[in-house]
Amino acid sequence: MFIHSRRKSIKMSTQGQVIKCKAAVAWEPKQPLSYEEVEVAPPKAHEVRIKILYTAVCHTDAYTLSGQDPEGTFPVILGHEGAGIVESIGEGVTNVKPGDHVIPLYIPQCGECKFCKSPKTNLCQKIRISQAHFMGCSTFSEYTVVCDISVVKVNEAAPLDKVCLLGCGVPTGYGAALNTAKVEPGSTCAIFGLGAVGLAVAMGCKAAGASRIIGIDINPAKFEIAKKFGATEFVNSKDYEKPIQEVLVELTDGGLDYTFECIGNVQLMRAALEACHKGWGVSVVVGVAGAGQEISTRPFQLVTGRVWKGTAFGGWKSRDSVPDMVDKYIQKKLMLDEFVTQNLEFSQLINIFKRN
Amino acid sequence: MFIHSRRKSIKMSTQGQVIKCKAAVAWEPKQPLSYEEVEVAPPKAHEVRIKILYTAVCHTDAYTLSGQDPEGTFPVILGHEGAGIVESIGEGVTNVKPGDHVIPLYIPQCGECKFCKSPKTNLCQKIRISQAHFMGCSTFSEYTVVCDISVVKVNEAAPLDKVCLLGCGVPTGYGAALNTAKVEPGSTCAIFGLGAVGLAVAMGCKAAGASRIIGIDINPAKFEIAKKFGATEFVNSKDYEKPIQEVLVELTDGGLDYTFECIGNVQLMRAALEACHKGWGVSVVVGVAGAGQEISTRPFQLVTGRVWKGTAFGGWKSRDSVPDMVDKYIQKKLMLDEFVTQNLEFSQLINIFKRN
Ligand SMILES: [Zn+2]
Ligand SMILES: [Zn+2]
Ligand SMILES: [Zn+2]
Ligand SMILES: [Zn+2]
Repeated sequence: MFIHSRRKSIKMSTQGQVIKCKAAVAWEPKQPLSYEEVEVAPPKAHEVRIKILYTAVCHTDAYTLSGQDPEGTFPVILGHEGAGIVESIGEGVTNVKPGDHVIPLYIPQCGECKFCKSPKTNLCQKIRISQAHFMGCSTFSEYTVVCDISVVKVNEAAPLDKVCLLGCGVPTGYGAALNTAKVEPGSTCAIFGLGAVGLAVAMGCKAAGASRIIGIDINPAKFEIAKKFGATEFVNSKDYEKPIQEVLVELTDGGLDYTFECIGNVQLMRAALEACHKGWGVSVVVGVAGAGQEISTRPFQLVTGRVWKGTAFGGWKSRDSVPDMVDKYIQKKLMLDEFVTQNLEFSQLINIFKRN
Repeated sequence: MFIHSRRKSIKMSTQGQVIKCKAAVAWEPKQPLSYEEVEVAPPKAHEVRIKILYTAVCHTDAYTLSGQDPEGTFPVILGHEGAGIVESIGEGVTNVKPGDHVIPLYIPQCGECKFCKSPKTNLCQKIRISQAHFMGCSTFSEYTVVCDISVVKVNEAAPLDKVCLLGCGVPTGYGAALNTAKVEPGSTCAIFGLGAVGLAVAMGCKAAGASRIIGIDINPAKFEIAKKFGATEFVNSKDYEKPIQEVLVELTDGGLDYTFECIGNVQLMRAALEACHKGWGVSVVVGVAGAGQEISTRPFQLVTGRVWKGTAFGGWKSRDSVPDMVDKYIQKKLMLDEFVTQNLEFSQLINIFKRN
């Protein structure tokens, strides 16, 4: 009670005020981020101002910074895998309150649009009007403002430095296996690309009871880590001269039940489809391809029973699902710690992008 | 009983003998069929010799004759929408007997291969070894020999001149809606191409309870007939300058729940996918594209929830399903008469292909 009232008094000191804080600003494409002071306005109606305590880095951030995303506008504060504590709320906000531990969500869930009402999709299309110069989640800032439909309260027992990963990559891969592909027990799966998203796909395939989980990468060092997430075999595509889809079809007596492209390479998206078993194989596009790039195949691949799908945020309805995944993590039913490769101070974030 | 024994005596007179009969032979690609006498060998083990009483013409026959099918070999007797009566059976045949009314099936159902054992596909892969120079069903012949797994007995009450249509096009379209797309009540559907297969798709969409069934063609005369099969609206793509997918997305407040390409045009396959509603639209490739042609799209179409599938024989397991469809026709739950545009003597068959 004491702690609560003390917290409240802290909030009162900034509530309604512009907050000056540090942020990593992307002023223009292909330039390093700039670590500088920014002003964060108080939340307007149906907005939430969050003190971001941890943020992770997703390759979509690097992609936007590269200038390849035709929808990317600058200047911008990037970052969409964050976790923090609600600092203050605008009028009409009822789903979170100051002091709540929260995860900002780059796909909102309004609960009212036709997408939210459909059980088939998680792509809420409620337009996020009010996020002026703070696009998306903007977690590369000590404070950020998001819409109330773009934030969810999570269990306070969860360490925020880990559950921030539930803002994008982990749910994307995990849900690609469970929600989009609907991997079945005993089935065979192949994952193209063993980055964080690919590892999360492996974790999803394992959770679904897949019998074979083949990880494909050009870096053999990835296999040891992939094993921890459920991969049972490793194929280094560099070891073969023939197309990787042919290698996989031979390895699996006709092809895989489920395949996942987690890199964003349109040639591999085709390979992933064509590595599927005739009659029933399902291939899921998880990676984000470069602007204007296209996938292709012979229609015979589809006519003979392969299915081509894609996923965004793993098909999870964001506000319904992220708190459940946090609880699963606490119950040790979902791995997060193993995804973390490095811990850095916020001020060092700008150096990550310099290297890329 | 008398009829039965009289029939039997007829069979005895040809059983085990080579039968000389008339057939429409395709000696080489792009040449007219040749109406001439052929010799049909007696059925070997697990083969069935059928007296074909009726055959329909499918555009796949014309496609093969055009020489565009890389797997087409010549000379060949085409035709795969036939119906007739079993003349004699080879050793080990148990599913049909002489005198049975039957439909030959271009996709067999052996019941034993991994495809037959999977509930997800109808693409039996048991290799049809014994059909020497008679490829597929070869229904453009007064007699033909097929494997026992490629023929099914049907209700004798059914007129064979109608149910021969259940050999290919009608089940393909009807099943594309019911089995492959799994059209739901109240959903919106669009059908590209209102030939026989497209009309059968409309019939399937209607049977599934679709609320809007949009027929797309460049020939407005097709709409009246399409209405009989369930189409509720007609779009003549010639009436628009902008891409047909944009026209359809505007007409349907964001796109269709289900689309079907029934022509074999890879550009329209793309249009059909892109006319689907974000989040859940499913597009089914039904038409057969020319050899070597490819479909393409931006992967974003899939990542935002559209699904690309295809169908062969409408997903029906052939021997399980064709007799049921015959019964549905008898019960007037499935239309066939309306598909017939012309009745010809067999000797005139060769003239159809001359015209094309
Ligand atoms: Zn991301
Ligand atoms: Zn919504
Ligand atoms: Zn056909
Ligand atoms: Zn089979």
